[in-house]
Amino acid sequence: MIADRLGVSVTTVARAINGSPKTSAGMAERVNRVAEELGYVRNMEGVKLRTGRTYVLAALLKFPSDTEIGDPTLLGLLQGIHQRCRDTDYSVRTIIAPETGEDTIELERLVKGRGCDGVVLDHTSLQDRRVKYLLEAGMPFITFGRTELFSPHAFFDVDNEFAAWQGTSELIRRGHRNIALLDGPEAYTYVRQRMTGYRRALAEAGLSYREELVRNLDPQADAARLAAAELVRTTGVDGIVCVNDVVLMGARRGVRDAAPERFKNFGFSVRSGTNLGDYLETRPVTSYFSRIDAGWSLADMLIRRIEGQPVEELQKLVRTELR
Amino acid sequence: MIADRLGVSVTTVARAINGSPKTSAGMAERVNRVAEELGYVRNMEGVKLRTGRTYVLAALLKFPSDTEIGDPTLLGLLQGIHQRCRDTDYSVRTIIAPETGEDTIELERLVKGRGCDGVVLDHTSLQDRRVKYLLEAGMPFITFGRTELFSPHAFFDVDNEFAAWQGTSELIRRGHRNIALLDGPEAYTYVRQRMTGYRRALAEAGLSYREELVRNLDPQADAARLAAAELVRTTGVDGIVCVNDVVLMGARRGVRDAAPERFKNFGFSVRSGTNLGDYLETRPVTSYFSRIDAGWSLADMLIRRIEGQPVEELQKLVRTELR
Repeated sequence: MIADRLGVSVTTVARAINGSPKTSAGMAERVNRVAEELGYVRNMEGVKLRTGRTYVLAALLKFPSDTEIGDPTLLGLLQGIHQRCRDTDYSVRTIIAPETGEDTIELERLVKGRGCDGVVLDHTSLQDRRVKYLLEAGMPFITFGRTELFSPHAFFDVDNEFAAWQGTSELIRRGHRNIALLDGPEAYTYVRQRMTGYRRALAEAGLSYREELVRNLDPQADAARLAAAELVRTTGVDGIVCVNDVVLMGARRGVRDAAPERFKNFGFSVRSGTNLGDYLETRPVTSYFSRIDAGWSLADMLIRRIEGQPVEELQKLVRTELR
Repeated sequence: MIADRLGVSVTTVARAINGSPKTSAGMAERVNRVAEELGYVRNMEGVKLRTGRTYVLAALLKFPSDTEIGDPTLLGLLQGIHQRCRDTDYSVRTIIAPETGEDTIELERLVKGRGCDGVVLDHTSLQDRRVKYLLEAGMPFITFGRTELFSPHAFFDVDNEFAAWQGTSELIRRGHRNIALLDGPEAYTYVRQRMTGYRRALAEAGLSYREELVRNLDPQADAARLAAAELVRTTGVDGIVCVNDVVLMGARRGVRDAAPERFKNFGFSVRSGTNLGDYLETRPVTSYFSRIDAGWSLADMLIRRIEGQPVEELQKLVRTELR
């Protein structure tokens, strides 16, 4: 239609729209003016064919199980990723990561089916098979969390050891002495780091580490509720360090289930990226880092990785603040 | 590579992989076996070029504002949409809807840039401009919520009038008499329907409708907190009907801010698609419909719409259950 209107060839118009140096300034202006009049929108499919790129960022994220509150931190992460991509050519394809282990099936589909230009991974493990696969496949990616692999890769992480140390230390400062830890499965890097931070805070305060006060569980509300109730019934626990918002909600409920009279003076700390704590009856000690900011950084660093920035410059560790 | 391995032409292999009737059963089997050995994955970009389809579902959803708890119901919706698309050729592209009004810019980009095969819209209004645009553009879509347009379109909705009636009636049954309503902006269809249900429940119980007990607000925790505190300070309110989980969290906090001594006997009801209520100190009256099921149905009906099912068969209204 643009070519018809201007009485020139389709090739001439195509050259102008794609910014070819063969186009004169006058022709470029005429083509763009008519394109605007006709409501032309750049066809991303055409751009993709020409550049061999998909302009898709894949976010392979673990979702909470069906029956739960729904982890508000995951939503923040997604929101941040989307905010970074807004008004860019990139769109976001979210993929629910398989519940079990480090399945690479989804990633193989993405890589072989050319489904994206880069990948965001969360729930990283020490020797993460998915990371190994992406390194080998040469697909740009960034992990939310670190690994112990020899090959460097882009990552963004909240200092988990520090966050757990911070939350535990603050509970100790407030007079709690029998502090439990409700955390995720030990396979994840962040859980190992958190357990180190928890032990360090206890040691610094001269408190002994008691294995029976540590629970590694699927970090969901119902599991946390049962674990907290059992801890209250079987130990002299007076405070709980919680790995996330839903574990906090479950732990609070579990303490009330087992010993409502102890709830009022019970201490809770949580690593959170939301302001949920402001709305609870008793405010938990909160180690805060915005999940929206985390998502934004992950997408930003991934785009820079796709565009060629070296991985060594794309490794960022941030600290939680006490709230 | 497959052709080389079998010593046949590339055309023969392509035919076999695309299920051409010109391929013999023996050849199809040989090609598929070698394809599997070589780790061949169907190139969706090729499929898209051949079919002229994108195999992308766009979900244009309103996200909560930055500073809030993060609405867990939205996560459930996304999770349901993804669960339906899992193990299909469809991928999901989530787009954050603009905060303001019924902007069609994002939709025009999608339609003109051929960014998707169909759209999920939420937060529908009575004369929704986005719906009008999509009807005119001939783009398949489904709304979460109804409109008052005469042109039929696919929708999935929770019976909002019923849900508000149900929550209000149950608070009345429990002895509350001065029941406020904290709801969204009146522009949305679902809010109109909820206000009707609330008034009907009051009328059935012989209670008079008092305009000062109704607040239409941005349904977020902080706004709800302020509104609830003000209601408690200025009226004899003894119960609040809340439009969603975050408004419930805010309202509970607001009541405690203004009159902690009244909190214990205060009544709350909420329309919810999560089990958040199970984890609070006092259990709210809950009108429940799973957000995951809602998301699943939206994606399922949209796919059927894309595949040609008439809109009249793709209109579904479900009811909340009291929990």
